Amino acid sequence: MAKQERAIRTRRAIVEAAGAVFDEHGYMSTTISMVLERAEVTKGALYFHFPSKESLAHAVLNEQVPFGAVPPQACKLQEIVDMTFVVGQRLLSNALLRGSVRLAVDQETPSGIDHGEPFRQWAERLTDLFELARERGELLPTVKPRETVELLVGSFTGIQLMSRALTGRADLADRLSVMWAHILPSIAVSGVLPRLDTRADRGERVLASLEERAAS
Amino acid sequence: MAKQERAIRTRRAIVEAAGAVFDEHGYMSTTISMVLERAEVTKGALYFHFPSKESLAHAVLNEQVPFGAVPPQACKLQEIVDMTFVVGQRLLSNALLRGSVRLAVDQETPSGIDHGEPFRQWAERLTDLFELARERGELLPTVKPRETVELLVGSFTGIQLMSRALTGRADLADRLSVMWAHILPSIAVSGVLPRLDTRADRGERVLASLEERAAS
Repeated sequence: MAKQERAIRTRRAIVEAAGAVFDEHGYMSTTISMVLERAEVTKGALYFHFPSKESLAHAVLNEQVPFGAVPPQACKLQEIVDMTFVVGQRLLSNALLRGSVRLAVDQETPSGIDHGEPFRQWAERLTDLFELARERGELLPTVKPRETVELLVGSFTGIQLMSRALTGRADLADRLSVMWAHILPSIAVSGVLPRLDTRADRGERVLASLEERAAS
Repeated sequence: MAKQERAIRTRRAIVEAAGAVFDEHGYMSTTISMVLERAEVTKGALYFHFPSKESLAHAVLNEQVPFGAVPPQACKLQEIVDMTFVVGQRLLSNALLRGSVRLAVDQETPSGIDHGEPFRQWAERLTDLFELARERGELLPTVKPRETVELLVGSFTGIQLMSRALTGRADLADRLSVMWAHILPSIAVSGVLPRLDTRADRGERVLASLEERAAS
């Protein structure tokens, strides 16, 4: 393994370990030695990549948006819908994503850590997709992409949180399905609306197709 | 002052102090002596009402729904809209409400504390109002009150959280206005929809009318 590749893998192992520890303990109670133990790397390797707990938190916060990766769709609104279901599904199995969400959401995360950053990153990513949806004639003329996008990011945040508090996120996909049923009629033109797939098992199906593609 | 009335006031002072301390420090870092100092009551009085930090947290969590009190409206959907704007407005000035929201939302709140309780209480309160709205013919026949209500509670939770992270809640009322603009067309019959007031200053105006009423 080339030296650079090894460094990338070590860095990734540390970020994943940090995400899992932040998910379990939150920012304040997390210590660098907890991350060290989880990552199974040397102290030197950890401090080479991350000189402080703050820098670990920044790295974990910056890892959220890649979890929204989905196959491109001809219909951009479907791609946006898919992102929400896939992130919901990945929250169930991925501790780094959960840790990143916890850092963004917990009030205890110190103000020195820019925990608003993931909100902005999601909003930017989704605004780009909304602009494409607009170009393709999928959006009602009343839609202001940035407003709608920030509503979606905020609603998603609270819906996953309520689902975690009430059912350990077991009903998150059902709740996302309800969200889209209420919001899409204010966004999509009537020609697109009935073709959008917002059923609760959408995330599972999209992830299965991604895995098939990776295996072939 | 009668003995009972004094006890009620003391209890209230303790709950308000606990809410403020939970808002600033979260559940884990809060100590009973911090609450004691803030409430300016005797140790004996505090332990008489609240034998533990857990019992303080329960009391604070149970104080959320009363902050949704608004004047009754002929149109029940307007009353529901008003509750969201008024709670948004009160979040800016009331530390007990903020502390209660923080306990419900923070992942660090231990599982022994039922932090799902405020979500359930809001859902029940709003479902009652939705049933009244249905009786008065305000709702589209497709609306399932419980589903819509849980969407609103989840969305509100995330929207206030995102607003706190990005602007210290300064833009919360604008964000609520955007939420209603997107969701109401899926809820309200066309005769009611254009009459609903969902402008961002709705909360301020409703609170001003409540204060006038209290002063007269």
